[in-house]
Amino acid sequence: MFARAFTGETGINSLMDELGQAINGGDIKYMFGGGNPAEIPEVDDLIHQIASNLVLDKASFSSMIRNYDTPKGNAEFIDLLVQYFRSKHDWPIDQDNIVISNGSQQAIFTVLNLLAGNGEDSSRKILLPVLPDYIGYMDQLLEPDMIVGINGKKVIASEHSYYYRPDFEAIEARLTEGDIAAMLVSRPANPTGNVLSDRDMDKLLELADQYQTYLILDNAYGMPWPNAIFVEASLGYHPRIIYSFSLSKIGLPMARTGIVIAAPEIISQITQVNAILALSPGNLGQKIFSRIIEEGKLSELVAAAKDYYQAKSELALSVLDKHLDSNLPWKLHQHQGSFFFWLWLDQSKVDSSEFYHILYQNSILSVDGRHFFTPEHHDDPESRQFIRLNFGRPDQEVIEGFELLAKLINTKAY
Amino acid sequence: MFARAFTGETGINSLMDELGQAINGGDIKYMFGGGNPAEIPEVDDLIHQIASNLVLDKASFSSMIRNYDTPKGNAEFIDLLVQYFRSKHDWPIDQDNIVISNGSQQAIFTVLNLLAGNGEDSSRKILLPVLPDYIGYMDQLLEPDMIVGINGKKVIASEHSYYYRPDFEAIEARLTEGDIAAMLVSRPANPTGNVLSDRDMDKLLELADQYQTYLILDNAYGMPWPNAIFVEASLGYHPRIIYSFSLSKIGLPMARTGIVIAAPEIISQITQVNAILALSPGNLGQKIFSRIIEEGKLSELVAAAKDYYQAKSELALSVLDKHLDSNLPWKLHQHQGSFFFWLWLDQSKVDSSEFYHILYQNSILSVDGRHFFTPEHHDDPESRQFIRLNFGRPDQEVIEGFELLAKLINTKAY
Repeated sequence: MFARAFTGETGINSLMDELGQAINGGDIKYMFGGGNPAEIPEVDDLIHQIASNLVLDKASFSSMIRNYDTPKGNAEFIDLLVQYFRSKHDWPIDQDNIVISNGSQQAIFTVLNLLAGNGEDSSRKILLPVLPDYIGYMDQLLEPDMIVGINGKKVIASEHSYYYRPDFEAIEARLTEGDIAAMLVSRPANPTGNVLSDRDMDKLLELADQYQTYLILDNAYGMPWPNAIFVEASLGYHPRIIYSFSLSKIGLPMARTGIVIAAPEIISQITQVNAILALSPGNLGQKIFSRIIEEGKLSELVAAAKDYYQAKSELALSVLDKHLDSNLPWKLHQHQGSFFFWLWLDQSKVDSSEFYHILYQNSILSVDGRHFFTPEHHDDPESRQFIRLNFGRPDQEVIEGFELLAKLINTKAY
Repeated sequence: MFARAFTGETGINSLMDELGQAINGGDIKYMFGGGNPAEIPEVDDLIHQIASNLVLDKASFSSMIRNYDTPKGNAEFIDLLVQYFRSKHDWPIDQDNIVISNGSQQAIFTVLNLLAGNGEDSSRKILLPVLPDYIGYMDQLLEPDMIVGINGKKVIASEHSYYYRPDFEAIEARLTEGDIAAMLVSRPANPTGNVLSDRDMDKLLELADQYQTYLILDNAYGMPWPNAIFVEASLGYHPRIIYSFSLSKIGLPMARTGIVIAAPEIISQITQVNAILALSPGNLGQKIFSRIIEEGKLSELVAAAKDYYQAKSELALSVLDKHLDSNLPWKLHQHQGSFFFWLWLDQSKVDSSEFYHILYQNSILSVDGRHFFTPEHHDDPESRQFIRLNFGRPDQEVIEGFELLAKLINTKAY
């Protein structure tokens, strides 16, 4: 089964393999690939302090590491999340609206394969309504041809700046074919940093309602944490939305903890799959995050992360502004959210794969943008003009690396 | 896809749900269900000490929790495992023979679905050569009818004692059908406590060679750790075997760490699936276990666990001996390994599901044996005569609980 679906070389495997090697002591100097959270002193300090207290309480630590939770996750953590979302965000949810997973990658894998697939006389697909979107979705479907996408519409904001909006006409045209089980979108979008406006979210939700599909919303970089969102946006509860949250981007990626909030019939199915795939989700992340919430430290943590990414994006932008040749037609997606810049090599003489290799040879790790399009777009020239860059790195690395990047754009891309 | 395969009620979900609820404060008095590792003071102390040192080294802890590993797992941990298996067990393996997973449940899910499934004009299945075997395998296949099993042959050792041996004739007859991709066996067997002899392992391996199938060997309760094996047995390396190891039964279940050792072409495929399912495996268990090996504490840990389960099984057996009516035809599988007793209610007036409920009503949690047979055996009377009991509980609970169990066998099963 998997041999057919999964064992060709995939974008996400290359990405994670490069990231893991670079972060853990490779010889790349400028690590702008991958979605590793940044080293933020306030975040490290707080997580370290909480983890220390957790481990030093011996009876509690031993019981935590020795005793299996249920396939749904740790019951106390789920209770706490219910309280948190009810009291802080006024969401009308309960224990049966929540399930925990070994990371949101696994949660989304489970949700996609629960909803999509070939039935006896029809097939149900996943639609990414605003391409480009996250590389990690592209190879998750167990059956072939089950994920499709619609390119976002580019809105040009200034000579070197643009952003995406949903192409609602094209989305609706695709929905009328009647084979879409769910739409899936990340907000802020990984890789582009786009943040769908509340109004566009409402419009997507209307379409979801009208065409009876779910809307899967990946908040890994978004609300309520790490809240790497730098424009106006809100997040309300709607029973047609399947919400995915992650602890990775708030500093805990290796605790592999994802949270899904959705209608009870979805949650109970994910729980069943958890048992079969994983017995129960690991609890280190759940326990650390519980204490962060209980001790009232979450807003502090989120503020530290948000300030850091804001400052870092301004620094990187100032370096690019200074060194990029403004007579060339390169464009950057407006930085509305996430840890990434999305560089559009408009009218470049090289495609994104070539430019990725030029950067790599110059010790800059980036991600080739073509992996963020669904398979049916892989031959479009449109999918070969983008590079994703993680700017969440130490100042000196950002200053040197983005200067080098700018010079390579000036001299090698044009 | 999953909706078809996975969302009926499954044995493993019921088991893990009951276990998680009972362990985390349910009102069951005698918790003999599930495979939770026991509370062993020496094990708790050692793990706690190692975890404390790990967390207190702040720079190392922050880097550990913040930085993604590759989809293959933590490179230093894999290097250490290579050294360990080469030096301690003389296995001719290298880095490309090892991959880490979020628990061995997930590793085996991945391996089974890599090897089995429907092809264009043939289907490839998984054969459990010695039923009963682990409940967690039964629902892991993504396509229907892809797991089959052969009942073990009962060898009667004494009036109230027996053990299983592979029925080689039946196994070979099944293999000649030509559709078996791999055989899968746990050693010691969960649920029975059977330990296949080295000679029987060799014979299975010969058949695997002759019929060109893999042999997947699940060592969760076995060698080299926790080594809950109380008879003579050894574990050598063979390129046709896919070895699965777990850190769960040595006291770290909630760190969700599994290890697969196999031929490089299998390892690289599992690594691809890891990226898609999980990005990379969580590293807490890898880091704790690395320090256990580096500090030379593994043999101490294994000895403490083995002594504990040995003593506990003797205690539970002595209680049963004292209270069970020896004129009735109940039989226990010889305790060759694992944390479990496997009770054969031979000629009982009730079936195992009824007896499970009788025990439950009397505050004893057990596992109904029928879940340890493959689906095609579910209607056989043979699959309805067994109860699994985890004896790894505090002394008072074992003494009271096994006395109550004996009395219920005497009065309600016969």
